[in-house]
Amino acid sequence: MATVDESVSPPARVADPGEDISLDELRLAARNHGMPLEALRYDVTPVGLHYLLIHYDIPHLDPQAWRLRIDGHVRHPLTLDLAAIRARPYVTHRVTLECAGNGRARLAPRPISQPWLDEAVGTAEWTGTPLAPLLREAGIRDGAVDVAFTGADHGIERGIEQDYTRGLPLAEALREDVLLVHTMNGQPLPPQHGAPLRLLVPSWYGMAQVKWLVRISVLDTPFAGYQNATAYRIKHWPDDDGEPVTRIRPRALMQPPGFPDFQTRGRILDRGVHEVAGRAWSGWGPVTRVEVSVDGGATWAEADLGPQPSRYAWRAWRWTWHAREPGRYDLCVRASDAAGNVQPVEQPWNRQGMASNQVQRVPVLVR
Amino acid sequence: MATVDESVSPPARVADPGEDISLDELRLAARNHGMPLEALRYDVTPVGLHYLLIHYDIPHLDPQAWRLRIDGHVRHPLTLDLAAIRARPYVTHRVTLECAGNGRARLAPRPISQPWLDEAVGTAEWTGTPLAPLLREAGIRDGAVDVAFTGADHGIERGIEQDYTRGLPLAEALREDVLLVHTMNGQPLPPQHGAPLRLLVPSWYGMAQVKWLVRISVLDTPFAGYQNATAYRIKHWPDDDGEPVTRIRPRALMQPPGFPDFQTRGRILDRGVHEVAGRAWSGWGPVTRVEVSVDGGATWAEADLGPQPSRYAWRAWRWTWHAREPGRYDLCVRASDAAGNVQPVEQPWNRQGMASNQVQRVPVLVR
Repeated sequence: MATVDESVSPPARVADPGEDISLDELRLAARNHGMPLEALRYDVTPVGLHYLLIHYDIPHLDPQAWRLRIDGHVRHPLTLDLAAIRARPYVTHRVTLECAGNGRARLAPRPISQPWLDEAVGTAEWTGTPLAPLLREAGIRDGAVDVAFTGADHGIERGIEQDYTRGLPLAEALREDVLLVHTMNGQPLPPQHGAPLRLLVPSWYGMAQVKWLVRISVLDTPFAGYQNATAYRIKHWPDDDGEPVTRIRPRALMQPPGFPDFQTRGRILDRGVHEVAGRAWSGWGPVTRVEVSVDGGATWAEADLGPQPSRYAWRAWRWTWHAREPGRYDLCVRASDAAGNVQPVEQPWNRQGMASNQVQRVPVLVR
Repeated sequence: MATVDESVSPPARVADPGEDISLDELRLAARNHGMPLEALRYDVTPVGLHYLLIHYDIPHLDPQAWRLRIDGHVRHPLTLDLAAIRARPYVTHRVTLECAGNGRARLAPRPISQPWLDEAVGTAEWTGTPLAPLLREAGIRDGAVDVAFTGADHGIERGIEQDYTRGLPLAEALREDVLLVHTMNGQPLPPQHGAPLRLLVPSWYGMAQVKWLVRISVLDTPFAGYQNATAYRIKHWPDDDGEPVTRIRPRALMQPPGFPDFQTRGRILDRGVHEVAGRAWSGWGPVTRVEVSVDGGATWAEADLGPQPSRYAWRAWRWTWHAREPGRYDLCVRASDAAGNVQPVEQPWNRQGMASNQVQRVPVLVR
């Protein structure tokens, strides 16, 4: 029998010094796209501009035949159809989501995986029914510790065949703001965002937001599946167990000012007074400060913060730049949050390129 | 004064032998995404899965303030607002669009530009008002030869600052199927597809489908702007004037069977009987034949063609594969059209990577 060897499903790897992006990485970038940064102008990201990270294929689920199973360490396992879920009470949260691998392709050496630069982010109005009441209806038994969420997307990763499954600590799963989402920006959830139903765990990185949800299993032992035990961990050497990736670290991004070159995306700006604007967010607490630098991070100026529109959504900021002298500038922006976190100018490296949040750099030519 | 030199806006270039994808190319791939090929299952591509190629930034146009100017070699220049255009008669065409650079990153040596693999395609229901009656109302004067269409997207490309502008021969602009489009898949045109108004020239590659349209100018001399004279041409050496890129060459794509590895996107399939399916299209005439190979193009079998749903949209095909023996297979598919064009197994090279249509290759492991 032909076996699935490492030529089809290779192990984790870090790029060699000077190794550019491979066709495998490009293939991922061609399907999993970021949010073009000019879309930071929108409070809510239009569908199609929100970032996407899909591990395997987008599955096609017939909404009539689809069922959600809630089982495991519960007294009353439940099976629900879409009509039953849509008939339940619902709320809408405006939430900023970000991929845990954002910034990976800027690391040196570069971990080989989805090669994100800065743009794996988006904000949507997510509508769904709170998960906690459903879990309570199922009757969580004593001794439950984790909840495993399984999607219908099937694939292989580093030799391990799987349906995408993520575990979440029970206490997080019971947060009142965790939703089973069927509606995005007021429209039915599109296929690429998890139709007909996905999980939403505000403040956590994207790997927790399981799409194409088909099963929720309450566990009396810690979940030890691939996506928690191997993939989404901050590791420093090959055998490092590492630390789990959880909440989104603070990040600010700017709408690049001026206009771009097609190929380099370098920016050109006429000298004069310019409003520089963008958004900032953190899963660890409200954004308390945004600073801008025009000299590559040597000196910083304070930006004005807009209102915080929701507990979970990015916050607008703006800063006025008097660009008096023609020349080259390296614009940077960094955010701080109420928990005391500040974005690093130099990114501490980790082997899988997880939870990076180094400051954005935008090369600008003032003429 | 700081000048825009080649470090900001470099000239055209072909990659060195063995040169992998650069960060500049990756930056383009992170924002201009293809259609994940599993989305070939949809007759009409959901918004957000349709390919996107945006030369500069997505401009933000206030639909209340936006105006379309029709001028140049006409007797009665016109200025129209969006309400006036939406109030005109409208039709809907289902049209497959493809980027002229599709397949570029598979060429050796690789032209440096947006590094497409196979996936720069999508099909939508485009609704808008025919252009020809508007041009006739403006009163085309004798001697008109071309029509120039200008978008609001501004940038620089190989040192030439410009608003994206494409010229179209007058006879093409007067085709009854050329539309000014305000609605995509029954919804208002999204920002990334040209809101509030874009041009649609069915059967032509994407460069003709000008987004964020603000001006239509009738010309009495051939249009000599950058996008026609320099960018979208099939050239073979640096000073070659080349031939203009026009209609879409035939192409077939398959939904990759089985399931993928996350990193390599290599496919794994259990042995047995499998339906292999996909779509095929051509801007030169109806698709007349689709053939499938499981040995990398050495031998071919005829696929079954579905109905042709519209003059301009892709045609479904399917083929049954008896995958009896475990092992590695290189699945290929090729289309032929009524004009006698057949997809090449080996792609003839051109310097800018335009209008490639070599057969797709999908490595599959049968276990």
